[in-house]
This record gives sequence, structure tokens and C-alpha cells, in this order.
Amino acid sequence: MEFKLANRMEHLKTSEIREILKVTERPEVISFAGGLPAPEAFPVEVMSEAAARVIARDGRRVLQYSTTEGLPELRRTIADRMANRFGASFSPDEILVTAGSQQGLDLLAKVFIDQDDALLCESPTYLGALQAFRTYGPRFVGVETDDDGMVISALEETLDREPRAKLIYTIPDFQNPSGRSWSVERRRALLDVAVRRGIPVIEDAPYAELRFAGPPRPSLAALDRMGHVVFLGSFSKIFCPGLRLGWMAIRQPLYQKLVLAKQGTDLHTSTLGQALAAEVFNTINVDSHVERIRNLYRGRRDAMVKALERELPPSTTFTRPEGGLFIWMELPDGINARALLERCLAVDLAFVPGSGFFADTGHDNTARLNYSNMPEARIEEGVARLGKILRDMLG
Amino acid sequence: MEFKLANRMEHLKTSEIREILKVTERPEVISFAGGLPAPEAFPVEVMSEAAARVIARDGRRVLQYSTTEGLPELRRTIADRMANRFGASFSPDEILVTAGSQQGLDLLAKVFIDQDDALLCESPTYLGALQAFRTYGPRFVGVETDDDGMVISALEETLDREPRAKLIYTIPDFQNPSGRSWSVERRRALLDVAVRRGIPVIEDAPYAELRFAGPPRPSLAALDRMGHVVFLGSFSKIFCPGLRLGWMAIRQPLYQKLVLAKQGTDLHTSTLGQALAAEVFNTINVDSHVERIRNLYRGRRDAMVKALERELPPSTTFTRPEGGLFIWMELPDGINARALLERCLAVDLAFVPGSGFFADTGHDNTARLNYSNMPEARIEEGVARLGKILRDMLG
Repeated sequence: MEFKLANRMEHLKTSEIREILKVTERPEVISFAGGLPAPEAFPVEVMSEAAARVIARDGRRVLQYSTTEGLPELRRTIADRMANRFGASFSPDEILVTAGSQQGLDLLAKVFIDQDDALLCESPTYLGALQAFRTYGPRFVGVETDDDGMVISALEETLDREPRAKLIYTIPDFQNPSGRSWSVERRRALLDVAVRRGIPVIEDAPYAELRFAGPPRPSLAALDRMGHVVFLGSFSKIFCPGLRLGWMAIRQPLYQKLVLAKQGTDLHTSTLGQALAAEVFNTINVDSHVERIRNLYRGRRDAMVKALERELPPSTTFTRPEGGLFIWMELPDGINARALLERCLAVDLAFVPGSGFFADTGHDNTARLNYSNMPEARIEEGVARLGKILRDMLG
Repeated sequence: MEFKLANRMEHLKTSEIREILKVTERPEVISFAGGLPAPEAFPVEVMSEAAARVIARDGRRVLQYSTTEGLPELRRTIADRMANRFGASFSPDEILVTAGSQQGLDLLAKVFIDQDDALLCESPTYLGALQAFRTYGPRFVGVETDDDGMVISALEETLDREPRAKLIYTIPDFQNPSGRSWSVERRRALLDVAVRRGIPVIEDAPYAELRFAGPPRPSLAALDRMGHVVFLGSFSKIFCPGLRLGWMAIRQPLYQKLVLAKQGTDLHTSTLGQALAAEVFNTINVDSHVERIRNLYRGRRDAMVKALERELPPSTTFTRPEGGLFIWMELPDGINARALLERCLAVDLAFVPGSGFFADTGHDNTARLNYSNMPEARIEEGVARLGKILRDMLG
């Protein structure tokens, strides 16, 4: 039976990544496509024991309904982490636990976006954010972005002509898909603009703790003096994604609005998942654990960068991220990343074409490469295949 | 900082229940207010061991990202349960795992509702559904409802004058808040109307397995021949709510639309929670477990019904549910349930005034009483306090 659906459903399409990821389920495929953390870094034994312990000790509470805001012990842990790792002071009452930071994106659009409001984002930007926001009917306005972040003059010009601008969405550290990070100057300048214009900035920070090289940069939340930053954190990359556990750090009165939006959406995030995360934080040294993940990913990034330098024709450029999970590749004009992908899939190699990461059309010569989920030898083999096909295509 | 929010936020308010529940956190309060399952019925030991086992055995998978649709092993388990307990044949590919059935409500409104569409519901209906739907701006149209379900002639008349009716929302078994169940005839008649008019029916069935008395009635999903029913199931009442785990059983092509909506909302439901639920289903006899819950709640319902018969003045009426968690009380005209609540809170007794469960205003003389979360002695004591205050108010 076909029913009459909401108008918004006309704009929702299956993401291209999703279709590619189906192919990558075959174990022989070398996948640079997803954004999966390395499962060999999951603290499996610790979590197995912690799960048993927390249920046995406190089952009647951790298996019961709980509050929309989140478990007190986890919110305290998160507030501590915001201070110690992100340099930002939030009380536990300003922390809202979410079903991954993806839910934070949905809730923010729910709270802020009316049909045809303008939502400003980097160009390119995270595809999953576009998907979450799209439900609420914004006009996406990609702001010119270079290696240091959004170009501030372009941001100002955009805001001049967009009276209905409601949100500025950013991933300041090791951006998905570009791997780039904002300079400190741009961070400060962005906040100046946000304060002057009275527009909130989303700081989506799932990768921020995964810095391999270069000096740390302050989070937007740490620089924010006026409560203009909504910080989205995630346990997916420092811990494991299967719990679907993230958080928002938000000042009042906005906090209470997001709690209301979440309440109608799913009542609250899994009590058990929250209790388990808090228990693991009390059991292991999470900072040392994150250090191990960083070392693992640094090796994989190095392997990929070296292989790309060796294998790619000089007309192809790519980013050298100082952290995170992704490298961004720009192919010579005239080379379509979808055509390249098709040839790569034929030799069991996958990546994601870049055009889906833009609010506008075009950009067919771009691609995103993930290095976190494959061992170094497979990365080298995959890049060798990629280089061969690309050299063939270029004649 | 105050920002410009979406227009929808003007309609979202903190639920009255939520405020009342804060009071009931004090252990001395006898609470008939929430809808909490009895935590003493949670299979704590089984779950503690199952959690440890499933993580130790399969940690790299159950702690990783998974598909939006849900884990294959859990979807098979759910499809089996739909057949064996609800008499409805669904393939695992028609099961979508959700963050509790509350998320199913949010996703359905997201997929179906444009601003000012009509959404038909029972009168009264589940307050959390009104809250989930309200985000998307429907006009709620309460359909006249008696002890057998919606009055079909009233439903037809409503549909005659509502060309923009998009959804019919029902809780056919042991409804929240009324405790009433639809007769078989009304179920069939509802489906006839839905098919003739081409309108989907939501069957929200969190309590359906908790029947204490009377012959079982077929689910709407079992009676549905044309794919007009969207079934929402939940593990919260037969298992535990803290996992936030529910499901939708839906035919194509609607299934794919709901998957898309969920993908943008939270990517997928906790992999670990899903794996844990599937493991528990493979470990214990869930039907026997549900039987124990039923026996426990039957005793509590009996205790509450007997106490109400003994303590309440004859001008006050209440339902005698054949299952579920709730009794619905109608006070004499002129008695305001909020005023009654205020007096009850002063003697550490809580319940929920009924007016919030209606799409329209009024109904100030109604109240919902929950019996699943208090032992029988406390139920008797609470009803005694309620009766005394009510007799005082009536002079």
C-alpha cells in the first residue's frame, strides 16, 4: 500500500555511502569507505566485565527508565572530561546524554530549523549532518572553506544576505570528510561573528581527541565566553560506537529546550549503556586508552600518506591530517570519482566519492579515504590498486 | 543567550507527569503516577551473565556500528514473536529495531505529518504520543471512544470532514491511560475504514502481552490483510525499559521510508543492547518470564481494584482492566483532579491528572492510576489515603 507521506520525504534519499558499505561487507574488500573505528582497539574484556558488574550490582536501576537528561554519574564524568580534555567548564546540569552525536544533530535541527531557514556549513561537510538536518527543510548554505576553516569574509557576506540564518555547523578538528582543522585565529574570529550576529555555532567534535601531530588547538567551547557554542561529543571514536552514546554540552535556557525535544523523541538514552560507560571510565585510564588508539591511527595515516605519495600521479592532491580518520583527495579535473569507484570496486577496493559531502552540486573529482579500519598492509595494497587504476584512467 | 528557535518549540512544554515524577523519587512517596514496570521482575542475573558473554564472545561486532534496520539475530527473534504472540506474519526484513516504541512514534510523525495535517487518536490517548507527534505540527483530532474502542460512526464522520487525515493512532490493548481494550468487532471495523480510506493505522502495543483475564483478542496486525497497520512493539514491559529497545513491523515500501528517517535521526539503535536482548531470548524462556510478570501485575491490579471498591465514594468510577499497567478514574463533576493531587502529595501520594491525555481541553475530573510499580500493601495504603481525601473533598 502506498500512503500519502509528509512533503519532507521527497528530499530524503538513501545515502550513497550506505550502498557502498553494503559492498564492503565482503571480507576480501579493502575498504577506505566507512568511518569505522578499529574494532581491535575496543576494550572488549574490560567492557564485558564492567557490563556484568554494573548489572549485577545495580540492575534494578540500570535496567529501569531514567531521566531524559542522562545518568548523574555519566554526566559528572562528561563534565570532568569537558574540563580536562576540551578546556571548557560545564556543570553536569549542562550535559545532555544523547544516542550518539548524530542524535544531537537531529535535536538541534528540531529545535532551531523552520522550513527554508538557512543553515550554514563548511564546504564540504559531514554527509550525515546534511541527512539529519534535511528532515527539517533548511536551505544549506556552504561557506567557502580553506585549510584553516571557514573563510571569515565569506561567512560575513553569507550572513549579510541570509537574514534567516539560524545555525552555523562546524567540525573544527580533523573534519569529516576533509581531515582539515581550523586555525586558532579562525576559531576566535568565528566566535566573534557568532556573538555579534547572535547565531549559535555547533561544534561537532567526535574526532577532536584523536590528534597525532601538531600542537593542540582550543575547542570552540573553551573559547566561548557568551554561550554561543553547542558542543557535540561522542564516545564512538575514543571508546566504541556500538553503544550509540554521545553528549551535548549546552548553556541554559537552550539546554531545557533540547531536553524537551529529546523527551518526545526517545524519552532517554539507554540507561544500561550510560551506566556501562560510566563504569568503564571508573575502571580504566581512558586517557591511556585514547593514547593507544591515537598511536594505532597515526601508523595507519602514515602508511596511507606514504602510499599515496608513492602511488598517485602528481596531478592528484590529498590532505595530510594531523588527526582523525579521513584523508580528502582531489582528482584532476575531468576525472569523475564515481567512475573511479566503479573500477576500484571491480578489484575489491572501496572509497566514498566526495560530491555527497557538499551542500551544492558538482565536486565530482573529489573523494574521501578512511584509514582507521584497515591494517597498514591492506592500506598499502589498496592505495597501490587505486594508483594503478588512476594512472590507467589518466592514460 | 536567547536564540531564535523553530516555531514548533512554542508548542513543546515540559510534561506534567515529568514534574510529578520528580516528587515521586522520594522513597516514602506511594506513587501511582509513573508507568514504571516492577524492577523486581527484571531478569537481572540472566542479563548480567548474558551481557558479559555476548561482549566477550563477539565484542568486535556488538560494540561496532551496525545497520539502521537492526541486528539480524534480533530481527529474526522479533519476527518469530510477531508470529507466535501476535499472530502476524512478518519477515525479518519488515522489522525495524527502534530506541523504544517512543522512537517509533517520532519516526512515524516525521514520515507522515506536515504542519496542520490531521492526526486521529483515541480520547483520551497516550500523552507521550501527543508529545512525540506535536513536534511535527499536526492537528490532533480525538475520536469519540467508549469501552470497546473508537466509535466507528464517529471515526467515519471525523474522516468525512478531515481530508488531510494522515494517521489513525491507537493502543488497542489495555490502553494508556484508560486501561480499556478494543473489542474484536471494532478492530475489524477500524481496518475496514482504514482500507476504504487508504489511511494507515498505528497499533501501539507495549502492553498487549500483559493480559491477566478474559480471552485474548487478535492484534490489528494479525487482522490486517492489506498492509495498513504499522505495529509498534516494545521490550520495556516484558523485559526491561532501560535498554530503550522496541521495534516496528511494517510492510514495504513504507519500511524503507522509516529506515531513511531513522538513519538521519540516530544511525541505528545500540548494537550492544540489541545483541543482549537477542542473547537473553536465546537463554531463558521469555514466555515463562512474561507469565511471571503477568501474575505479579494481576495481584497488584486486584489489590488496587478491591481497595478502590472499598475506599472510593460511589460517585467515583474507575475501569477494571484485563491487563496492562493502568486504571482510569472519573471523579464526580466539579472535583478537579489537580486539586485532588495537591492534597494527595501533601500525604506522600501521587497519581497523574487525566486532562493531559486528551487532545482537547477539559476533562479535569479524570485521573490515571498505575499499579505495576508498587507492592500490594502500599497500593492498599495509597488507595486508603486517596479515598479519605476524596471523601473529605466531597464533604
